[in-house]
Amino acid sequence: MGFLAYAATDIGKPLESFEYDPGQLGLDEVEIDVDYCGLCHSDLSMVDNDWGMSRYPLVPGHEVVGRVAALGEQVKHLKLGQKVGLGWRARSCMVCDQCMTGNHHRCPQGVDTIVGRNGGFANKVRCQGAWAIPIPETVDFAKAGPLFCGGLTVFNPLILSHLSPMGHVAVVGIGGLGHMALKFAKAWGCEVTAFSTSPDKEAEAKSMGAHHFLNSRDEEALASAAGKFDMVLVTVNVMLDWDAYVNLLKPGGRLHIVGAISKFEATWFPVIGGERTIGGSPIGSPALANQMLDFSGRHEIAPKVEEFPMSKINDALEHLKSGKARYRIVLKNDF
Amino acid sequence: MGFLAYAATDIGKPLESFEYDPGQLGLDEVEIDVDYCGLCHSDLSMVDNDWGMSRYPLVPGHEVVGRVAALGEQVKHLKLGQKVGLGWRARSCMVCDQCMTGNHHRCPQGVDTIVGRNGGFANKVRCQGAWAIPIPETVDFAKAGPLFCGGLTVFNPLILSHLSPMGHVAVVGIGGLGHMALKFAKAWGCEVTAFSTSPDKEAEAKSMGAHHFLNSRDEEALASAAGKFDMVLVTVNVMLDWDAYVNLLKPGGRLHIVGAISKFEATWFPVIGGERTIGGSPIGSPALANQMLDFSGRHEIAPKVEEFPMSKINDALEHLKSGKARYRIVLKNDF
Repeated sequence: MGFLAYAATDIGKPLESFEYDPGQLGLDEVEIDVDYCGLCHSDLSMVDNDWGMSRYPLVPGHEVVGRVAALGEQVKHLKLGQKVGLGWRARSCMVCDQCMTGNHHRCPQGVDTIVGRNGGFANKVRCQGAWAIPIPETVDFAKAGPLFCGGLTVFNPLILSHLSPMGHVAVVGIGGLGHMALKFAKAWGCEVTAFSTSPDKEAEAKSMGAHHFLNSRDEEALASAAGKFDMVLVTVNVMLDWDAYVNLLKPGGRLHIVGAISKFEATWFPVIGGERTIGGSPIGSPALANQMLDFSGRHEIAPKVEEFPMSKINDALEHLKSGKARYRIVLKNDF
Repeated sequence: MGFLAYAATDIGKPLESFEYDPGQLGLDEVEIDVDYCGLCHSDLSMVDNDWGMSRYPLVPGHEVVGRVAALGEQVKHLKLGQKVGLGWRARSCMVCDQCMTGNHHRCPQGVDTIVGRNGGFANKVRCQGAWAIPIPETVDFAKAGPLFCGGLTVFNPLILSHLSPMGHVAVVGIGGLGHMALKFAKAWGCEVTAFSTSPDKEAEAKSMGAHHFLNSRDEEALASAAGKFDMVLVTVNVMLDWDAYVNLLKPGGRLHIVGAISKFEATWFPVIGGERTIGGSPIGSPALANQMLDFSGRHEIAPKVEEFPMSKINDALEHLKSGKARYRIVLKNDF
């Protein structure tokens, strides 16, 4: 009767089996039979209450792919059994200015999948129908989970930057987010440079779409790349020497930071003089998620994943913490 | 024979009469008989070598309006006697990627009017023909000088921000730059709020186009304006509580800082979560200067100026330093 899940009962605790009663299905909700769920670094941050907004018991998991198991009365655009994905956000108000202009992910009343509610490390999960994104047949279902949070997070900056296919892009950090960014930017038509502190990732980064590889600990290499990029996309959540990264931009270029850094600081003259922009963004809208999936299907873009059975969730969490995941972990529901 | 000018002979010195031989007119140059020259805060910064790039003797003045007195052989698009203006930049290479895409103001080989060359506090000044901007008859010639530096500096952000006439704009700092920004934003069709630490400027700010006035020292008022603006344009060059200013933006909004602050720093989560952008810019291109003048003429936009004879340059500098200029000083050539 209840949903079967894995939950952290308190800050930083290992996950354990957890059953809960989801109550009645909302009129605008769908219930999803979970097939796979990606494991995102944000799940770790939520288990550890890094952002001060965790509530326990906490069922993480916000990169769900599965099939529609039940439909609220008002949900007419989806069908039972349809393949759908669910990412970071599970609900928005649908009527505020942001929702009404297609920016549902900016809705101030938005509800996130694992903030104050239960996520996808479970046999079933629910969300508002509008946030259950249909998965086209062109997309690899078993690997699609990470597209819904990490993938959308690095896809949205291409649009926000008004990036041309003629552009030159740097992707800083070749991990769960960055490796997807390489693939998107390559398929976008751009010249792509991978920045990483791990020189052993060079060959793989190139196989994923990077034309060039730069060791970001090499200050000389960093300095010699000055002025080369239309967009520098930062996917890591550590403090960098931001002046050096502003310096990488062409005049008019954009430094876009999606990594959850605490503070940004930079000398302002090079920003003014070079007419540069610094931006950040969260995921993206449901409409953009649809376009991202269409684009991903056309270009055969999928994250590179390591699969664990969901029952091995704690092993998977340890693997993620160790920094050894290459590049994204997906849990297969074995309830 | 020589040009008659006013120069600072060393850091921070009062200006004194100075005559120099400009040499032969370059093939692509024009010589301008100066009628008026605006006094910009950057002139002060250059006299004081605030930016470490001043060379002495230094003839300031980079908001020139005057008439073409001589044309280099290659300059075919201007006529002798034609009214033109000259701003911060006096030359660009014309062939680099930036120049070839209409962004001459971003040219890395660009030469600034008073950096390593002599400016407009003089009877004559020279510049590359491409940077002598024709002044249409619709624009008030005697007041036009400040448009070429300060005016263009606050006009360019409207374009860089993709600002819609339906947008809501905050202008922070109602001085030499800010008062022109009020007029532009009003004529652009926006709802305009003036932010100032001087409550006595309220009535005048409203007469210049502000719909609302906010005392920026009033922290409660600042907090209550959260999430209201599509663009917050900062024209002051002092450190503010940047988190509070990011917080003023609607989701998707842009904080644009043209004031020559040293460093910018902000908590990054609100930037990411609100999909916000922070940008800076210098002046603008010659093509944009033409459009700005056309727009200014149509909307009868002129800076509010106080006129001094050029021979009273040191009095004018003191007046500017005192913070009492309302709002822009223009020197009338009385050589």
